[in-house]
Amino acid sequence: MSTATMKVHGALFSTASQRVFACLYEKQLEFELVPIDMRTGGHKKEPFISLNPFGQLPAFEDGDLTLFDSRAINLYIAHAYADKGTQLVYAGKQMATVSVWMEVEAHQFDPVASKLVFELAFKSMFGMTTDMAVVEEKEAKLGQVLDIYEVRLSQSKYLGGDDFTLADLHHLPCIQILMGTQVKKLFNSRPHVSAWCAAILARPAWLKVLAMQANN
Amino acid sequence: MSTATMKVHGALFSTASQRVFACLYEKQLEFELVPIDMRTGGHKKEPFISLNPFGQLPAFEDGDLTLFDSRAINLYIAHAYADKGTQLVYAGKQMATVSVWMEVEAHQFDPVASKLVFELAFKSMFGMTTDMAVVEEKEAKLGQVLDIYEVRLSQSKYLGGDDFTLADLHHLPCIQILMGTQVKKLFNSRPHVSAWCAAILARPAWLKVLAMQANN
Repeated sequence: MSTATMKVHGALFSTASQRVFACLYEKQLEFELVPIDMRTGGHKKEPFISLNPFGQLPAFEDGDLTLFDSRAINLYIAHAYADKGTQLVYAGKQMATVSVWMEVEAHQFDPVASKLVFELAFKSMFGMTTDMAVVEEKEAKLGQVLDIYEVRLSQSKYLGGDDFTLADLHHLPCIQILMGTQVKKLFNSRPHVSAWCAAILARPAWLKVLAMQANN
Repeated sequence: MSTATMKVHGALFSTASQRVFACLYEKQLEFELVPIDMRTGGHKKEPFISLNPFGQLPAFEDGDLTLFDSRAINLYIAHAYADKGTQLVYAGKQMATVSVWMEVEAHQFDPVASKLVFELAFKSMFGMTTDMAVVEEKEAKLGQVLDIYEVRLSQSKYLGGDDFTLADLHHLPCIQILMGTQVKKLFNSRPHVSAWCAAILARPAWLKVLAMQANN
């Protein structure tokens, strides 16, 4: 029997769930995965819907605290367990820049990257047809976003500064999938973006997330 | 001459800029507005683009610190000036629930509300025609989101708990505009949502933001 008090209600192939797994592994925290079967709509009905009324994976429990939304969950974990594992957030002014790049991930990168993941990876899993016009449009947009990342990553090793933080970590699930598609050229053609991708994809905590999938 | 060290590079009618003005007034902090003229593309060229390479209002300066993205700016202000004005964030576990509802605003409320603001308010200002099919679709979606807000606001006076926080504040600009459109019925037909809207729209700090526009 698991002694973990932390529970992630999620799925191995949910990118938002993977964000939380990666954070928990970086913090060297034990957790229990409570699998939610999205194919049977488990995320849209009880008991999950009581944990997240918006019906989106993942939800999270730490003792009597229940949270949802991967980015909010990770902020909680990083602050509440500041003394464990990798320091993923800061106090004071240094956190301000990390916050900016966390918002950039959420509002500039993810909306485009998630669409590309859906078109180029998830659609074929569901027997749907990729819309190449959407792919072309989103690739152009992602290229513009990554041009700005290239400048930023020429100034600092990571998005939030000299160290790996949540601002980098939150990109991992989408980048991992896109690196297995034609979109990888957009990352690899930009030297600083390419080096950053290689560094974050090689993190032991992220490799543990991939191992969870492989062992399933 | 102003002695304010804080500068908001923004515009009076930019909802994202208004979010930052509201936060600064809640914290009783002096600031200088550096107006960016969006009609002439001021947000897409220098000097603004050096402050925010994504070309979106607002950007923010506090001494030698430069930030962009309204939500990241507000998190910085609320934490850096914790001892001033209204306490808009918490330390520890109490902040976790505020973070969840900040993400709800950003990912569930704002994408729908912003589209409705564009269709029902901004389009007529630009001489464009409202697409009523889009309005109908987004109203249905907003109704679903507000059903969840209604349950939440029956449990606590504000989204993040018993007190007004950034999770509430970030909704103000879009709600203010939508209350002047047909969408107000979606807020007013839900008693707890309606009471919450009335409470947050009446905050003195928000009235100061409206006064900025009126005095222009």
